[in-house]
Amino acid sequence: MSNKDHCLKLFEEEKSRYIEEWRQFLQFKSISADPSFAKDSLECAKWLVKHLNAVGLESGLLDTSGLPVVYGRREGVQDRPHVLFYGHYDVQPVDPLEEWRSDPFAGQIRNGRMYARGAQDNKGQILYFIKALEALIREDGLKCLITVLIEGEEESGSRGLRNRLESWRDQLKADVLMVCDSGCVRAGVPCITMGIRGLIWLEIRLGGLSHDLHSGSMGGVVRNPATEMARLLATLHGAEGAISVPGYYDGIIMPAVGDKRLADKVPFDAKRFKSLIGVEPDGGEKGFSYAERRGMRPTIEVNGLYAGYGGPGSKTIIPAAATAKLTSRLVAGQDPQRCLDLLLSHLKRHAPPSLKFEILDKGIAGPAVSLSADSPLIQTAKEVLENVGGSEVDFTWEGGSIPIVAALAGVSGAEPLLVGFGSEEDCVHAPNESFSLAQFRDGLCYSYLMLARLSALESSALRVGVATRIVK
Amino acid sequence: MSNKDHCLKLFEEEKSRYIEEWRQFLQFKSISADPSFAKDSLECAKWLVKHLNAVGLESGLLDTSGLPVVYGRREGVQDRPHVLFYGHYDVQPVDPLEEWRSDPFAGQIRNGRMYARGAQDNKGQILYFIKALEALIREDGLKCLITVLIEGEEESGSRGLRNRLESWRDQLKADVLMVCDSGCVRAGVPCITMGIRGLIWLEIRLGGLSHDLHSGSMGGVVRNPATEMARLLATLHGAEGAISVPGYYDGIIMPAVGDKRLADKVPFDAKRFKSLIGVEPDGGEKGFSYAERRGMRPTIEVNGLYAGYGGPGSKTIIPAAATAKLTSRLVAGQDPQRCLDLLLSHLKRHAPPSLKFEILDKGIAGPAVSLSADSPLIQTAKEVLENVGGSEVDFTWEGGSIPIVAALAGVSGAEPLLVGFGSEEDCVHAPNESFSLAQFRDGLCYSYLMLARLSALESSALRVGVATRIVK
Repeated sequence: MSNKDHCLKLFEEEKSRYIEEWRQFLQFKSISADPSFAKDSLECAKWLVKHLNAVGLESGLLDTSGLPVVYGRREGVQDRPHVLFYGHYDVQPVDPLEEWRSDPFAGQIRNGRMYARGAQDNKGQILYFIKALEALIREDGLKCLITVLIEGEEESGSRGLRNRLESWRDQLKADVLMVCDSGCVRAGVPCITMGIRGLIWLEIRLGGLSHDLHSGSMGGVVRNPATEMARLLATLHGAEGAISVPGYYDGIIMPAVGDKRLADKVPFDAKRFKSLIGVEPDGGEKGFSYAERRGMRPTIEVNGLYAGYGGPGSKTIIPAAATAKLTSRLVAGQDPQRCLDLLLSHLKRHAPPSLKFEILDKGIAGPAVSLSADSPLIQTAKEVLENVGGSEVDFTWEGGSIPIVAALAGVSGAEPLLVGFGSEEDCVHAPNESFSLAQFRDGLCYSYLMLARLSALESSALRVGVATRIVK
Repeated sequence: MSNKDHCLKLFEEEKSRYIEEWRQFLQFKSISADPSFAKDSLECAKWLVKHLNAVGLESGLLDTSGLPVVYGRREGVQDRPHVLFYGHYDVQPVDPLEEWRSDPFAGQIRNGRMYARGAQDNKGQILYFIKALEALIREDGLKCLITVLIEGEEESGSRGLRNRLESWRDQLKADVLMVCDSGCVRAGVPCITMGIRGLIWLEIRLGGLSHDLHSGSMGGVVRNPATEMARLLATLHGAEGAISVPGYYDGIIMPAVGDKRLADKVPFDAKRFKSLIGVEPDGGEKGFSYAERRGMRPTIEVNGLYAGYGGPGSKTIIPAAATAKLTSRLVAGQDPQRCLDLLLSHLKRHAPPSLKFEILDKGIAGPAVSLSADSPLIQTAKEVLENVGGSEVDFTWEGGSIPIVAALAGVSGAEPLLVGFGSEEDCVHAPNESFSLAQFRDGLCYSYLMLARLSALESSALRVGVATRIVK
C-alpha cells in the first residue's frame, strides 16, 4: 500500500509521537555561529545518533575540524540505488529574542504550526525524512542503500564537512543526493529546485598614491583611483548587460528548450515584485527571460565599492585608493577557477598602469549545479510530487548558491534532488520561525513515496538517457 | 630713495619693532574653526584696528554674520590706482599641540625664523604689507587710494565676508586686488600666482531598491546600483582623459602662447614628485603639459564613492544604493552655473531609468581667475620682484581654488595680484609653523616697492592694453 493514502494514514496515527520527537530535536540550542553553544550542538548530534540507531540505521559521529557530522547508514539490496541524504542540525541565532511569541527552543504548536528555531530550517525537514525512512524500514519497504550525512555547521559555512569530503570519497559514491532544505514558490504547489548557481569572489584595490591628495593642486596631474575604479568596473558589462570579460561565456551549457519552458512557466507577479523590491526587474542581459536571468545566466555583481570621503559635505580630495568587492554567479559549464582567472586578467589588463592594482582577496565557493527534467530521477520525483500535491509541480533554477551541495554532488557523483516544503510564511532565519503540520505531512509523504519508488528501481535505470548537467 | 637698498635699510632699522609687533599679533588665539575662540578673534580684530589707525589708515570693524572684518582706508591722489588689499587674521587650530617645540602663540625666534601659529599664514604676510604701508605713509610716498580688508574666517570658509560683499560693492570698486597669502615654488625665487581654478560640487545617489538584496536570487534580475554608478561615472571622461560632458569645454579662454610658455618654464622635479606622491603625474588630458593640466584645464574628480559592504570578507549583496561626491575645477571662460547644469543633465541622461537618481547636494564655490603676463600690472610686479629676488620670477597657474579671491575680484572689478613669500619649509596648517625674517624682509621690500610703483602710475595706465582674463 505504498501510495499517498497510506502515508496520510501513517501521519495521522503517528502524529503525536512525531511532534514529541520534533520537540526533543528542537530543544537543542545548536547555534553554530556562536562557539558558546558548542556543547548544545554536540548534545544535539548525540541525540540524532541515538535516534537514527533506533530507526534502524547504523549511526555515529564523524569528527571534523569543527562540530561533528552525524552519519547513518543502512545497506540495501544489490543493484538498487545508493541514496545519500544531506541535512544540517545546526540553526541560526535567535536574536532579537524579544520578538519571539514563545520560547524558540520549546516548540509550541499554534494553529497547526510548530513554532521554534529550526522548526523548518532544517530540523523539521530532516525529521520528516527520517520518519519516512523509519516507516519504510518497519514495513520492510526500503531496498536502497542509504547514507545520511547531517552536519552541524551549515549556517556558518560548512567548513568542517567540506574539509573532510575528499577523505570520505569512497563511502559517499552514490546515485542520488537527496536534500530537503528548500521550499515552494507557490503555497501548496510542490517544487523541484533544478539548479543553483556557482560562486566566486574577488576584492581588488586601485591605489599607489601615498595619501589622499588635494583635488585642486593634483587634479588633472595624477589619475584618480575612484574615477579609475569606476572606469575599470564599467568594462565588465556591455551596453546590453552582457558580461564583457573575454571567454567568460565559453563552455556554458545552455538549458534544454523544455527546461527553459519549465522555468518560464513558474508564475511571476511583477506588481508584487516592484512593491517588495522597489524597482523593476530589468537587470541582467537583454533578450533573456526573468527565470533565465535569475538562474540560468552568469552575473558579475559589485557587492561593495569604497573610495575617499563619505562624511557630510564635500572634501576636495583625490582618494588615495579605491576598493571593490565583487562576486560572480556561475552556471552549468563554467569552471570556477577558469572564470576567476579570466576575471582577474581582464581587470589587470584594464587597470591603468600608473596606479597600483592589488588583489586583496579571491576565492571559489563552488560550481553551479544544474539538472534537466529529462532525467529519470527528476521524472520520478515529478510523478511523486504530482501525487503528493495535487497535479502541478514547479521547476525552478535558483540564482543563489549552495556550495556544499555542489561539493557533495561532485564527490558522490550523485544526481542532486532538491525538494523541500518550506514557504515564505515559515520565517526561517527570523523570529517566530515555524513549519506547519501540513507541510511536515507533505514532506513525509514525498520522502516515503520517493524512497519507495527508488527502492523499486535498479540503479542503472537512473542512468538511462540521463541528460543531467551536474557540474563539478 | 624708493629702491631695494632703501627697503633693506628700513628693515634693519625697524626689525626689532617689527618683531615685537609681530609677536603681539601672533599672541591672539584667533582660531575661526572653534567657536570657543570667538573672543580671542575679536580681541585680535580690535588690535588690528588700533594698529591700522596708528599706521595712518582710517580703520574699524565691519559686522558680518560671523566674525568681524577689519577694514582700513586711506584716500589717495586723484587718478592714482585704488589698491584693495585682502588678508585674514584667523589661523588654523594648533593640534597636535605636543608636536610644537614652543608655545604656538608665543612667537619664538630660532635660527632666524619666527615660530608660531600664523607666523606665515596669514599674520606674517599681512604684517609686512602693513609695515610697507606704514613706511610709505611716513615718507609721504603713498599716493594710491588704499582699502584693506582683513577677515577672520578664511580658514573656515569666509562665509561672513562673502555674504556682505554685495552690500559693499560701491566702496570696493578698485583697480588692483593685492593678496599676500601664497608662496614660492622654488626657495628664493619670487612667484606670481597667475591663476586659480574655479570650483563646483555635486553629490549624487543611485538607488530605489527597498534594501540590500541577495546577489544570488536578485543578481541578473535587478540593476546593481554600485555597478550602474561605476558605469555612470565612467561616462564622464573619454579614453584620452578628456571630459565627455557635452559642451563642458565651450567658452574656455585658452592661455596665450607666452603664458603657456611661462607656466611650462617653472621647473618640475619628476623624481621628487614620484617619491612624495607615490605615482607618476600621468593624469588628466593627453596632449597637455604638466603645468597646463594642473592649472589651465578643467577637471571632474570623484572625491568619494560609497556602496554596499565595506567590512572584512565578502557579503553577497546587491547594494540598495550607491553615492558619489564629485567636484569640478573650472578654468577661465567656464561659467560655474552652466557647468553645474551641464554636468547634472549629463548624469541624469546616462543614469539607468529604472533606478532612482537623486541629487543630494550641489553648489558653486566660485569661478576661475586667470591673468596674463601681458598686463601692465603683472609686468610691473615682475620688474619689482626681479629687483627683490635677484633676476628670476616664476609664474604659476595653480590648480586649487580660492573662492573668496574670485568673489572679491568679481565685486571689485580689480585685477588680482597674488604674490606671497611662503615656502614648503613654513609648515603652514601644521605644528611648528614658521616664517623667516628673510621672507618677511622680501615681503616688505616687494610690498613697499610695488605700492611705490603703483603710486607713480595713473590708474588708466593699468588698463592700457590689458589682456587680463579675470573671470567672474
